[in-house]
Order: sequence, then C-alpha cells, then structure tokens
Amino acid sequence: MSSSDLIELTAAEAAADIARGAISAEDLTRACLDRIAATEPDIQAFVHVDADHALAQARALDRHKADGGRLGPLHGVPVGIKDIFDTADYPTECGSPVMAGRRPEADSTIVAKLREAGAVILGKTVTTEFAYFHPGKTRNPRDLTRTPGGSSSGSAAAVAAGMVPLAIGSQTNGSVIRPAAFCGVFGIKPTHGLISRAGALTLSGKLDHVGAFGRSVEDLALILDVLAGHDAADPDSRAYAAPAFRAAAAEEPQVPPRYAFVRTPMWDKADTEAQEAIEELAGAVGAEEADLPDGFAGAWEAQRVIMAADMAHNLGSFADEGPVSEKFAALIAEGRSVTAVQYLAALRDAEHYAEGLWGIFEQLADAIITLSAPGVAPLGQDATGDPVFCSLWTLVGFPALNLPLLMNDEDLPIGAQLIGAPGRDERLLRTANALIGAISD
Amino acid sequence: MSSSDLIELTAAEAAADIARGAISAEDLTRACLDRIAATEPDIQAFVHVDADHALAQARALDRHKADGGRLGPLHGVPVGIKDIFDTADYPTECGSPVMAGRRPEADSTIVAKLREAGAVILGKTVTTEFAYFHPGKTRNPRDLTRTPGGSSSGSAAAVAAGMVPLAIGSQTNGSVIRPAAFCGVFGIKPTHGLISRAGALTLSGKLDHVGAFGRSVEDLALILDVLAGHDAADPDSRAYAAPAFRAAAAEEPQVPPRYAFVRTPMWDKADTEAQEAIEELAGAVGAEEADLPDGFAGAWEAQRVIMAADMAHNLGSFADEGPVSEKFAALIAEGRSVTAVQYLAALRDAEHYAEGLWGIFEQLADAIITLSAPGVAPLGQDATGDPVFCSLWTLVGFPALNLPLLMNDEDLPIGAQLIGAPGRDERLLRTANALIGAISD
Repeated sequence: MSSSDLIELTAAEAAADIARGAISAEDLTRACLDRIAATEPDIQAFVHVDADHALAQARALDRHKADGGRLGPLHGVPVGIKDIFDTADYPTECGSPVMAGRRPEADSTIVAKLREAGAVILGKTVTTEFAYFHPGKTRNPRDLTRTPGGSSSGSAAAVAAGMVPLAIGSQTNGSVIRPAAFCGVFGIKPTHGLISRAGALTLSGKLDHVGAFGRSVEDLALILDVLAGHDAADPDSRAYAAPAFRAAAAEEPQVPPRYAFVRTPMWDKADTEAQEAIEELAGAVGAEEADLPDGFAGAWEAQRVIMAADMAHNLGSFADEGPVSEKFAALIAEGRSVTAVQYLAALRDAEHYAEGLWGIFEQLADAIITLSAPGVAPLGQDATGDPVFCSLWTLVGFPALNLPLLMNDEDLPIGAQLIGAPGRDERLLRTANALIGAISD
Repeated sequence: MSSSDLIELTAAEAAADIARGAISAEDLTRACLDRIAATEPDIQAFVHVDADHALAQARALDRHKADGGRLGPLHGVPVGIKDIFDTADYPTECGSPVMAGRRPEADSTIVAKLREAGAVILGKTVTTEFAYFHPGKTRNPRDLTRTPGGSSSGSAAAVAAGMVPLAIGSQTNGSVIRPAAFCGVFGIKPTHGLISRAGALTLSGKLDHVGAFGRSVEDLALILDVLAGHDAADPDSRAYAAPAFRAAAAEEPQVPPRYAFVRTPMWDKADTEAQEAIEELAGAVGAEEADLPDGFAGAWEAQRVIMAADMAHNLGSFADEGPVSEKFAALIAEGRSVTAVQYLAALRDAEHYAEGLWGIFEQLADAIITLSAPGVAPLGQDATGDPVFCSLWTLVGFPALNLPLLMNDEDLPIGAQLIGAPGRDERLLRTANALIGAISD
C-alpha cells in the first residue's frame, strides 16, 4: 500500500489492516510522519512530535503482535493529542507560555487508555491558549488563509490534513464541533461525564468534555469504545452502562430515525449559505421543524457565566502571573465579577434547559439537526470563529456530532450538527449512519 | 405498663414490645400524646400535632399486626418530624410566616420511609425560621429558661421531654448536634449523602444533612437502618453500600477503638467547665491529643461562605417578599455579596479539609472526640447558641454524634461529640457504644 493510500485509511480500516498483517504499525506511523513532514510547515497542527519516539512505539507494537500478543482495538494506529492532556512522554503546555516546558509525570486517563488500546501517541496538537479563544499557529488545511477553528485547532487540522486518522480534542463551549466543521472532518463531543478528564487542564467541571476527530462515524464509535468509562479521578465521571459503541452504531435502526430541525435563537448569526445548506439537509431527511421551549435564549448567558466563573476559579492565578492574552485576561476579570448567586442560578437553569430538551427527544425525534457553526471557517488567523451553535449542547451535556456533509460553492465545508439524548451516544452514532445512508441513496 | 414507663422506652424497646404484643401502638401513641398534653404548654416542641390522626395511624398499625401483616422495624413507634420535611398529612411551614398554611402534596423521602417502616408520624416539630438562627417558641426541657438550641429545636426538646422516643432533624451548620447537646439526648448527623433530603427545605446542597434524635445509640442505628439509602431525587445522595447499622453498631470492636481528642481552633470559645468535662472524658478513654492540620482555621469561613451563598440562591426570594427576621435578611444579603470565585474556592477548600481529616482516621483514631457546643444551653429564648463546634464536620460531611454523657454542677447537659470517617457511620456508632461501655466500667 502506498504512503498516500495509508494516510487515507480510517482508524478502523488501519487497525484491521494491521491486525491481519497487511500493513505494519511502523508503515502507518511512517506514512503519517512523512505527511506531517510535508504539510506541517503550512498547517502547523503540532506543538510536539518526536518521530523517533513515535516509530519506537510503532515498532514495539509490531513486535508485540509478532510475539502473538493480544491486540487492542487501536493497535498500531497513530493518534494526535490536544496539548491540554497530560502525557508522560511529551511536554504538556496548554497553549500558554505560562506552562512552557511543563512535563507531566503521568499520562492523563485518556492517554493511558489509548496506550492500552494499542495506539501510537504520535504527538501533541496545537490548542488555543488554555483551550480558550486566543489562537495558536495552526492554519486550516482546506484553505490556509482561514482559521481551523478552536480550541482543538491542531487536532481537527491534523485529521483533515491526513497527518493522523484520529485525534483527541476537548470542548467547553464549541471547541470540538466548530473546528471539525471548519476543517471538514467528523467530530464528537459525547455526553458529559462519559469520558474522564482526569489529567487534562480543567476549565470548567460542568462544561469540559473530552471529544475526538476522525474520518468516519465508525471511528468516532471506536474512540468511544476505547475512552468511555467511569473514572473516580474525575468527579463528574458518570457510571453509564457503556455499550459496545462501534457494534451498536453499526446496527440498523429498528425504525427509521426521526429528526427534529432546530434553528435555535442564534439562527440570525448564521450566513445565508449555511442556513440554506442545513435547511436542505433537514428537508432531505424529512426532519420536523421544532422550536426550543420558551426561555431558552438565556442558555447562552448561563454557559458564559459558568465558563467565566469556573475559569476564573481554576485558571485565575495564571492571569495574575501572566503572560496571558488580553482576551483571556478579560474573561478572568469577567469571571471574577460573577456572584455566587448568578453562578448557582446558571447551574440551575442548565438543569431546566436539559429537562426541556428531553421533551424533544421523548416526543419528537431521535436526533436534533442544526448547524455546527454559523458558516464556513472565517478568513484570517486572529480568531477561531464563533462557538454560538455549540454553547447550548455543551451547557446541557448532550452528545453532539459534526458531520462533514455540506459544502459551499467554493468547496469549503459547512458542518451539520447532530445532537442526541444524553447517555445515548451509541444511538446518536447509529442515527448519524442512517442519515448519511439516507442522503446517499 | 404505666404511661410513665411507656414514655421512657427507647424506640428499639418500644418496637420490640409492640412486636411481641406486650403493648400496642395505640398504647404507646396515647402515652406520647398524654405526655405532650401535659408538658407542651411549657416546652412547645410541636407546631402541628393531630391526636386523632396519630391515634388513627396507631390503630391501623395495630390492625395490620392483628391481621398477621409484616412489621417494619419501627412498627407502632411515634416519631416527631422537623417542620422542614414535607408531609402529606400535616402542613409544612419551615418556621416562617412566609410558608404559613403550606400543605405539601407528597411526603418527603424520609417521611415516606418512616411510614414504610411502620412509624406513627406523630406531628411536626418546631424549627427556627427556615432552619437558620431566628428562634421558634420551644423551651429547653432541662431548664425552661434556656434555649433548646436550634435549628431542630422541637425535635431535640420532644425527645428530651419524653414526648416521642425518636425525632427527625436536619443540620446545615450545627442544627442537630447542638440542640442534642443542650437538651441532653443522643443525636446523629450522618455522612453527607447517606440520607435523602428530597422533599425537605433546601438551604445548601453541600451542607444540608438529615439527622435524628433518640434515647440510645441503638436508636440512632435503627433510624439509619430505616432512612439510609440512595435516592435519585436528591442530587447529592450517595450510593453507599449500606450495612445493617443496628447489627453492625452492636458488634464488639475487634480491637479496642482508638480516640483522637481534637480541641479545634475554636477551643477558646468554650466555657471552662465544658473544656474540663471533655478533657476528663478524653483522658478516661485514653484519647490521643491531635491538632488539626495547618490552615484548618479557614474551614469556618468556608462553611459560612457556602451556607450564605447557597441560602441566598435557594431562599433569597423569601427575603425579598418577606416577612423574615433581620438575621435571615442579613444572611441573604451576605450571601448575595459572595462571588462565584469565593464560593468555588470554599468548595475546593472543603475537599482539602476532608482529605486532611482522613489522615487522622487513617493514622490515629477510629473517632475524634470534641465538644458538641461551647457549653451548656445558654439562658434566654432570643438565640439558639453557637454552632461553632459543628461547622467543620458539617462542611466536610463526616458523621457526628452527640453523646449526652457529661453534666455541669447544676445537672445541665454538656454534649460530647464523636466524629467518624465518612461512610463509616456504623463504625462510629459501634465506637460510641465502646466509649459508653468504657466509661461505665
């Protein structure tokens, strides 16, 4: 298999090829490293890659296989890790000079799980400063003059550019779904509490989610199989009865899925071309139009209040010591002005929004269709675009996918977002497969 | 058995006598009602008692027994319920004119569990205004010129006065342990999350605990057997593997318990007679003196910040609409001035204090001995005494008992407090039995 074929494999395909001996972990890792060498000067998705270390991991995995060892579901598959997740073998600097040279002693839970699953930890991908808004160096592989989105900029760009089949990100507002939309890759922000955040930078316990980028719905299910699970080291970790996501996602729905098309109160922020594209998709699958219950416009303010206060609590000392960006300093100042009563009201409101949304899933639909972002990736590298179409789903902790199904006239991706009921991530993935099947017919 | 014998029975004794047919539920309930009729004009422990309704419950329980029905562990035992717990058959007014005449539609979880266990819900006991500081009408049965303590004033007084063998209270700061100490009865504030608060007035999710008053350690274990257990309707409910508390508490310890005597940074607030009494007790059982880890003086401020902010969040609207006491209004104003960052820091600090206290239990002792209150019940009815010896244990959610083992020269009770490791309530009860045995030898 040629190097250009290798870098187009999905993670599931690559793992299967490695398992049956068609390719080696070293072949695949070398192809990824070659691709990085060729495209990284333009795209700059990584903050740390050690080719020798990556190849050493791959060769060790090949030896393990040659010795008849048991193979994990990601055996030999290179993965990129957003640089807010601790790694024992790479620095973890969180996109800030405040943490320059920081070397964790232990892997975060998700990195440890990836290693157990046989993944090659290829390197650390660019994050915006503290996974907030101030951009890193990464450019959008679909158009280098545009932002890749943030805060998981490098992970989205690396998957889009063929540097890795899979990459890990995180979302506190719109940091997985938005860059997935802008870079035209599959992305998942699973149910809050499904994947442990132990060993990751904490912005907000209520809002932080681990997410992932891949080249197929199957790969997103595969990464949930590897990462989902209760972890006592994460106080928000939930002991969901975890299904086999990949198997469940591959099942045919027993009845055709029903979709609700929800514009949200932020609809006017979307470009006309994005509005028309998602309306066409919703129409093509027979989605029923649904409004959010009354009072939902407050959800965006609630998300903001919680994020600002939690970040002031968790990261305020960095703002005091600096250097930090103006935007980050302003958020910390804003967070410090939030009263406890405002904060507690926002948390209570979030519960009400979640209950209200349950109604849509109980009565109307298996999944909500909406935009992932207001349009294609904006021009320039000074900002990372608007997370406004993600804030609500992050606040309530419902699972969300970006499906790279739509394009504008210039072949730039427009993201379709699919949202499911909480704790039913496998059903959301199955519904996504059904939707893709329906529009491909 | 005479009426005066009946009202001296512990709940466990009464339930056993009823089960073997020596007395009836109606006998016992009538004795309690007679005692209330005789002493209530002085003590004023109840806000609602309906003698006919109580006797009807008792007769129904006697019929159930006569019909060969299965008996719960409290079959026929009258219980008093602090008037912040919803009852479907009595008003629930939370000690405030704001809620005058309020009639809940459903029982709180603990009242439902008591009914399932066969208890006679005898009536609702006086609480301070919203279970905070502004006193109700209750007087201390040991000395009518003194406060019974608060906020569970009526429940503590009712048990002390022989009106009921058992009563339910709650503690957000010192509202079970302090009145138990002042009234000279056994009291328990179990581990946070062990007993559901669903259907109770919420002051603070982090701090609110259901507690109970009784005449023996065995009765406190019995009430835990009835009330402990996970409840999805209480977001802080913890799924502890609940032992059979009464059986576990009755076991002989395999090795003699070790005690740590902790004065706490609030020691100077205690009266000399109380200091000397608890020092003598600690010496008598060979307790090792232990200091709290450094920095623990901040725990009292953390408890205050969380309580004030949570109460402003949960009860602020009552202060706006009124009428409320000046003290309550001042607390709400204080809570509204707390910033989210102060609040979150207090929650984080509480975790640190809990971790620090674990060290004492791991290295030193099965239980901590300290005072329950700074001294005997203060004179007057304008205030309910100082909860300062309870705040820390409430903040960390560790289980605590008041043991009515000490007296001053005027035969007024001084409370000894015993604190255990979280989730080991049965061990704390067993240790209390061992302590009582040791000083009785």
